[in-house]
Amino acid sequence: MIYVIGIGPGDKRLMTGEALQAIEKADVIVGYVTYIKLIKELIKDKEIVKTGMRREIDRCQEAVDIALTGKNVAVVSSGDAGIYGMAGLVLELAEKSDPELEVKVVPGITASIGAAAVLGAPIMHDFCHISLSDLMTPWEVIEKRLLHAAMADFVVCFYNPRSKGRANHLANAFQKMMEFKSADTVVGIVKDVGRKEERKIITTMREIDYELVDMTTMVIVGNKETYVKNGKMITPRGYSL
Amino acid sequence: MIYVIGIGPGDKRLMTGEALQAIEKADVIVGYVTYIKLIKELIKDKEIVKTGMRREIDRCQEAVDIALTGKNVAVVSSGDAGIYGMAGLVLELAEKSDPELEVKVVPGITASIGAAAVLGAPIMHDFCHISLSDLMTPWEVIEKRLLHAAMADFVVCFYNPRSKGRANHLANAFQKMMEFKSADTVVGIVKDVGRKEERKIITTMREIDYELVDMTTMVIVGNKETYVKNGKMITPRGYSL
Ligand SMILES: C[S@@+](CC[C@H](N)C(=O)[O-])C[C@H]1O[C@@H](n2cnc3c(N)ncnc32)[C@H](O)[C@@H]1O
Ligand SMILES: C[S@@+](CC[C@H](N)C(=O)[O-])C[C@H]1O[C@@H](n2cnc3c(N)ncnc32)[C@H](O)[C@@H]1O
Repeated sequence: MIYVIGIGPGDKRLMTGEALQAIEKADVIVGYVTYIKLIKELIKDKEIVKTGMRREIDRCQEAVDIALTGKNVAVVSSGDAGIYGMAGLVLELAEKSDPELEVKVVPGITASIGAAAVLGAPIMHDFCHISLSDLMTPWEVIEKRLLHAAMADFVVCFYNPRSKGRANHLANAFQKMMEFKSADTVVGIVKDVGRKEERKIITTMREIDYELVDMTTMVIVGNKETYVKNGKMITPRGYSL
Repeated sequence: MIYVIGIGPGDKRLMTGEALQAIEKADVIVGYVTYIKLIKELIKDKEIVKTGMRREIDRCQEAVDIALTGKNVAVVSSGDAGIYGMAGLVLELAEKSDPELEVKVVPGITASIGAAAVLGAPIMHDFCHISLSDLMTPWEVIEKRLLHAAMADFVVCFYNPRSKGRANHLANAFQKMMEFKSADTVVGIVKDVGRKEERKIITTMREIDYELVDMTTMVIVGNKETYVKNGKMITPRGYSL
């Protein structure tokens, strides 16, 4: 049995009861070092398989191989495992190795929802998730989505917004979207949601300081009606033409 | 103090620890009858203010008024309170009544994420949320979003997909999107996520039986690369042009 578990953005109190139970049932925990650290008090008595970044296929195959020996394995992702996480890969590899092997996806609080709660209520109306990582998706596909999201006036939540190797991705994305979105559109930034260093910034597309954004940051761009009041970013639920 | 709490799709084990704690701290619980029922064992010793549907403004104002007397109030929404829920309205009304009144939004597992875990891994790549309710959003805005979402090949999660008063909304939405999406696109349907009657169906845009979809149903339409294997709906994380 494999559990693919979303452990939420970082704070243990943002884990679900089902995630806690699944971790308890597991004999072996597989995950990227950072996530293993986040839950270290919960897994003291478990066998642990830590791996570095970008070894995702190996890590998931290892989880499958261990599960095939009859052990209960928990593969942990931050946030929700089904959102730019491990769920798809584990399902795929498990099916190839043995279609009978049971895989259970345990949902978690994804970074956008955690960040939204910190900011106020920015995703009260239709929104989309866009990852700015072009490791596995061509930049043309990303750009197309940026333009359509802007034209349709979706609120947009950015995953993987900026890293050393992709220092200009967020600026390029904003540039594209500003063909259709006002430069005064409200932008909410939350770094390290649910972790000790959590920090929120509310700004606009025009005034954003891109340097504030790194790998563990969620960036939420509002729609035409999004406003700021009393330090909170709010997208009204109604919509007037 | 007001907590605006997302209690998840229904199963208590999908609540976060923070939501449980906030409910425990509350003196008064305010919410729509169905949600109050879902958490009834947790709130036996609390004062409860139940309200019917479409009385949202009154319900939230009442929560604010009670909080102003010094009590801790919990306003409960299903899923996440910041996604087509109560968070925006409570923040707005609280600010109007007394800008000093503290409001804390406690995140929850939203229906799309709960449904995705049941289906497999359908939202592993960029996706959007669209509500098909035109109570507060003109149908033209909804239609525009449907078209752009289809053109950009987003995975789409439908909230409020169909009800007695909106029997044709989902069919109309699919019709529109099929201008740009293949009729063979995979569609995952989950009714009553996290509740006793939970039921999942995997079909296509061409073959869907709209009658299966009601008010507490999540409908997830895949992208070009979404496939079904071993009864699971999977959207690969990579993307080839
Ligand atoms: C590979 S994705 C993983 C997403 C994760 N599965 C989820 O559902 O949140 C990594 C991106 O998620 C976002 N992220 C993850 N954890 C975060 C946190 N604690 N605070 C802010 N953003 C976070 C960042 O944008 C980061 O670049
Ligand atoms: C007004 S919205 C509330 C959304 C909620 N705040 C959330 O985050 O899930 C109501 C819609 O959410 C979806 N929904 C809510 N609970 C659900 C459940 N348990 N199973 C399936 N869909 C659900 C349905 O599409 C329903 O029409």
